[in-house]
Parts: sequence; structure tokens; C-alpha cells
Amino acid sequence: MKFSGKIEKCDYSPIRKFHPYQQDAEHRGSHIYHFNIGQPDIKTPKVFFDTIRDFSGEVLGYAPSQGIPQLIDAVQIYYARIGCRLMPQDIAITQGGSEALQLALSVILDDGDEIMIPEPFYPNYNTFITMAGASIVPVPTSPEEGYRYAVREKLEAALTPSTRAIMVTNPGNPTGLILSPEERQVLADFVIDHDLFLIADEVYREFSYESGELFSFASMHRLAEHLIIIDSVSKRFSATGARVGELICRNQQFMARLMKLLQARLSVATLEQLASVSLYEMGPGYFDATREEYRRRRDVLCEELSKIPGVSFSKPSGAFYMMVTLPVDDTEKFLVWLLASFNKKGRETLMYAPAAGFYKTPGMGRQECRLAYVINEEEIRRGIQLLAKAIEEYNRQ
Amino acid sequence: MKFSGKIEKCDYSPIRKFHPYQQDAEHRGSHIYHFNIGQPDIKTPKVFFDTIRDFSGEVLGYAPSQGIPQLIDAVQIYYARIGCRLMPQDIAITQGGSEALQLALSVILDDGDEIMIPEPFYPNYNTFITMAGASIVPVPTSPEEGYRYAVREKLEAALTPSTRAIMVTNPGNPTGLILSPEERQVLADFVIDHDLFLIADEVYREFSYESGELFSFASMHRLAEHLIIIDSVSKRFSATGARVGELICRNQQFMARLMKLLQARLSVATLEQLASVSLYEMGPGYFDATREEYRRRRDVLCEELSKIPGVSFSKPSGAFYMMVTLPVDDTEKFLVWLLASFNKKGRETLMYAPAAGFYKTPGMGRQECRLAYVINEEEIRRGIQLLAKAIEEYNRQ
Repeated sequence: MKFSGKIEKCDYSPIRKFHPYQQDAEHRGSHIYHFNIGQPDIKTPKVFFDTIRDFSGEVLGYAPSQGIPQLIDAVQIYYARIGCRLMPQDIAITQGGSEALQLALSVILDDGDEIMIPEPFYPNYNTFITMAGASIVPVPTSPEEGYRYAVREKLEAALTPSTRAIMVTNPGNPTGLILSPEERQVLADFVIDHDLFLIADEVYREFSYESGELFSFASMHRLAEHLIIIDSVSKRFSATGARVGELICRNQQFMARLMKLLQARLSVATLEQLASVSLYEMGPGYFDATREEYRRRRDVLCEELSKIPGVSFSKPSGAFYMMVTLPVDDTEKFLVWLLASFNKKGRETLMYAPAAGFYKTPGMGRQECRLAYVINEEEIRRGIQLLAKAIEEYNRQ
Repeated sequence: MKFSGKIEKCDYSPIRKFHPYQQDAEHRGSHIYHFNIGQPDIKTPKVFFDTIRDFSGEVLGYAPSQGIPQLIDAVQIYYARIGCRLMPQDIAITQGGSEALQLALSVILDDGDEIMIPEPFYPNYNTFITMAGASIVPVPTSPEEGYRYAVREKLEAALTPSTRAIMVTNPGNPTGLILSPEERQVLADFVIDHDLFLIADEVYREFSYESGELFSFASMHRLAEHLIIIDSVSKRFSATGARVGELICRNQQFMARLMKLLQARLSVATLEQLASVSLYEMGPGYFDATREEYRRRRDVLCEELSKIPGVSFSKPSGAFYMMVTLPVDDTEKFLVWLLASFNKKGRETLMYAPAAGFYKTPGMGRQECRLAYVINEEEIRRGIQLLAKAIEEYNRQ
């Protein structure tokens, strides 16, 4: 049987391809420190479960395709609190940020279109864009420049007549980079000047450790017709399994077309939407505690990493990821070695995400990896101490 | 801004476009008997809510992309009970039947491909297929022949070199038609002879009122490499708001490619999957009671309809829909009249789904409508008595 040419061009998740090695290590009884995944260990707020428990309906019916009005209201209030005035018709509830992204791309892309994305970037973007018939044009960055990309010349160099949008994750995954106020203006000028969409994945918004400012591009009114925001309760409230996200856009031509797709896929899970209302109603105090926890973890991670000879990194300002350059030949090979050969006696090792999968440009990222700090401080310290030992041993062979 | 050429070709849900008229009628205080929607009124089994209430985890994490193993097991056992042996790798849990369908189409379709679908059909198929870059070639049927389509000559006539699959809903929406054993063989022969996929939407499987047989194409082993089943807990367990469905396929080349898409969209809501396990564990007794309820409703509906002069229909064997030909000029115009002008004093009216939206061929279905019997017997009787009165009055004007 023949399959779609598009699906043949897609890859499996590069983060998950080391799973067999992980399973082997686990079967041998190894404890693994997981710096490789973005599943937070922070407790999901109790109010989420309480709301679901309190549901007293007898028929679990479809929710409206756009989302339940209470959740749309709650999202509107949340955005108002961070300085963004939205109307209910600017907000659609989606099956996680992933569906929001897929929908946004489906509404704007034709075969042969291009999307600019600063690399390194979240690898699932590859699948969504390939399936929409378009392709990614990477905006190159470098570890030495701290992965900064919002520089007019860099953006202009990646532009072609086929460019339809630029997609950014801010705060960044995998870099942890947060755009400066000047850089935001550069991006805004660029999309307005070239009549592009700016697709802003802002799911890590609250994880901002320096300024304390909660920024959304939605606060920049001149972007109104150009901006599509991807948002989600997943990371914000440590509720990744709820699969509740949001697509936000003030361009009503866009939203009218989006509605066709929302109607076709019917609705998002009803109970999860109700419970998400209660998450948004918790107020900003919740974030303060969570943010403080992640800030401490980041600091511990950077402190431990800075002790290892030959390791380099820029201290990240946000999200819960960072890119690190390791003094090894190849971070994919090194990861396999960590799982298959390192410390078999001590039965402790670690995992990270090798960076090659975050780059579109072949050959890039071979010495880099992404570390996620969604494990506790003690585990971070122990894991990075193991990393130091492993690098030494690996390079001695 | 320019939008996707594909999205411009999609329509809004034809079932929902009468919503403004409905709202006006409701604002005037009219009571509407809803024969227009497929939202069952049967209670969702209590065990669904109990399971969610009993969840004791603290972090609501991502589920595996293929689905949680307990639910895959439960689906496997359910299929074994109806005579279909599946392996866990043949089953993927999806965000409702809608996502299963979208995923199936994404894996197999290229731009310019064609899918054969007997018309009338579920209108959302239009959006999914258009967005995949393909087009629908309808297999025509007629009310006089009871909408039967599985006739070799009819199928051959719709086949072209671009045909990739035939898609059927069995039991049928909107027709309520159930394929006979001979017709199933005709379809199986056809897809094998022409090396096509058979996409079988079997979400109404349990709603079978004549033979009592619970049929799945998965029981036909010679179809193994050709068959993709779309399934869902939505209608089966009156849990449409759970958004839990299943894609079932024994073709491992297909499943390997599907996994790329499952990984990219991460997972289906974790609690809804756990609760769906408990639905499948209820056993076949649950269906007997539900089936009996729907059978009675169907009988009452047919009894009342047969009293109206000029109305014609074939008694449906399954699902909870039926197609009815009305003695009016145009069922869309008549519906607007029912909502805007009929019985303003009595403040009672009814809604159905006009059939034009279920046809691909322009001009078809103008005298037909779809009635859903997801309201209770008394409401069905009252609603159809109103219909009789309305037809008379409408034609007198």
C-alpha cells in the first residue's frame, strides 16, 4: 500500500528514540536522572481534581467547539491581568498547545509555503509543518551568541517570497532564552513590514526568572492582525495530561476560518475544560511559588555545570530548559554510552536530549544537548556530578 | 493576509448553520424538539465519573502517545468478545473518533487523491478530506433503494486511478443503514481487488436493532492489510464529552507511520482514558438496556411518521438516525419556517438536519432530512405530531 508522501518525510520524535537504551538500563536496575523530558514533577493544583470530583452532571455531553464560555472568560481575565485586552471571539480552546499549533498552521499554510523558525527549536514543529505541506527555513543562531535570533539582518536573510510566518517559542524551548523588549520590537517590525504572521508559542510564559515580567505579544496592539498565540495549561499548571490549550488571535478573518476546523473536530474534553477554569481562578500567587522553585533549580543546575571543565552554556532566563555544550565528540553517541556502558556497577546514570534533533540544519548541535530541570535540586546535583564523572571517563577511553 | 487554499474550500458545519434561527426561537420562548443533533440523552455510566473521582495521583502527567496500556487492553478484550482478535500494536487511542479519522486520512492521502464515500454521509468528512488535500467521490444512492450502496457496479463506477480508499459508516449516519453479510463481502472483495483501504467508521456498532449481531469489519481476516477502523466511546457509552476514540489497524506499516503523528500531538487526556477503561469493563449487559431504549424510540418515531400523508422513509436498522423524505419543496426553507414562523402562539416547534449538507452532489437531498432519535418517546411523539401539523400548514400558504 502507498502512504502519504508527507508522512514519509516526517521523523519519529528525536527525544524518544533513545527509549530502548533507557529500557535496557532500567532492566539492569540502573537509576536514571531524567534531564531529558519536559514533564514537570510539580503537583497539579488540588483544585483541578476537586472541580472534576464536584461535577454533578449526568450526561457528559459535547462542549461547544470554540470551548466552554467559562474557560474562555477565565482566559480573558488571565490575559487582562498581564495587560492584554482580548475579546471572547479572540480565544479558542484546543486539545493542548499541540492542537492549537496544528490548527494555526492548517489555517494559513499552502503546499510550498515556508515558515521561518530560529533553530534550535521544539522538534514536533517539524511534523506539524511537514504535514501542512510547508517547510521550515531555520534562522541560524549560535551558542556563543546565547542563541539570540531577533536581529533584523538574520531575519531578512531567511525571508523568501514563500515565507508566510515566523514561529517563535518565548520563553524558549530548548534554549530558555527570553526576548528582550528591543528584540520583541524587531520581530514586530519584521512581521508587519513583510505582512507575515507571528506564531508565538508562549506556553512557558510564567517561567521567567529575571525581570518578573509576564510578557505576551498580545500586549503589542500593532501586531493585532498578525499575531497567533499558542498557549496551554500543561506547563503553566503542571497539568500536561489535561490536554487543554488555547489559540489566541485578534484577526477575525483567521478566527472565522479556524471555526471550520473547530467544528469539524467537535470539541475538547468537557471535564478538563471545567477543571481548567479553576486553575485560572487560582490567581497569580500560585505562579510565584512555582517560579521560585524552578529558579532555584536553574541556579543549582548552572552552579553544578560550571564546575565541569570544558562545559559551556549561557544561563537561561526562562522556561525549564537550557542548552549546554559538552566536551564530547557527539552528544548522541555519548548518551548511548551513558545508558549502555557508564557506571554499570554504581547503577546510576543520566539522560538528556541530544541537540541534533532540535536543528533543521544537518550537522548542527552535535556537541550540544538540552537539559530540562523538572527534577528536584538534590537530583539535579547528583545527576550533574555523574555527568562530570562520565565526561572524564568517556574521553579517557 | 492570505489563508490556506484548503481552508477556503471548507464549509462550516451544515448542521450548525441554523443556530441563529434556533436562538431567535428560544428567545421568543419556544420549546424546540431536537431531532437535529446526535448528542444522546442517555446517562453516562456512573462508573465513568467514579473512576475519575477515585484518581489519587498528584501530578496529571502525559499519557503514552499510543494510549494508556490499560485502555488498549480493555479495547482488545472488547473486540475479542465480538470475535475480533487484535494485538496491542493494532490499537491507538485518539481524541475521539474525529481525531482517529483525521489521522487515518493524514497517513494515507496525498494531494489529488480521492476517497469514495456513499452519499448521504456525515458532513465533517468533507473538512477532514479537503484539509488532507484530497477529494470525495460520492457513491450515489437513493431513498427508493433504502440508501444501499454496497453493489459492485456502483462501486466500480466511482473508481478512478486516484482512488485510495472507500470510507463507510456502518451502522450508517445519517441513514441508519446496516450492511448485510453479502454487502460486506462485496466491499471486502472490492478493496482487495483494487488494493484500496477500507476506512470503516463503526462508532454506532452497538446500535443494531434487528439481528442483535455486533459486527466489525475487523472480524474479516482477509481485510487485515486494508482495514482502518474508526471507533469511539462517545456514542457507545453516551460520553461524547470525553473525547476518547480508537483507531484500529492490523497493517503495521500504517501503524508505524501513524506513530509519528501520535508522538507529535503527544497524548490523549489521561483521566478520560482511565475512566474509559471502566466503561469497557462494564460488559455487554450495559448495551442491551441502551439498545432496547433506542429500538423503542425508533419504533415510536416510525409509527408516528407513517401517519403523516406524503412522508416516506425506510425503517432504519441501526445507529440513532434516519433519513425521511418530506412532502415540502425544500427542507432547508421548511426548517427556517419551522423556527421563524410556525406555531408562534403554541410556542412549540421542532428541528431536524436538512439533508442537502449530507450530499456531495449539488441539488441532492432537497426533500430529505435526517432525524436523530436521542430524545425520549414522549418527546418523539409530540415532535412528530407537530411536524404533521407544520407540513400541512406550510403547504397551505
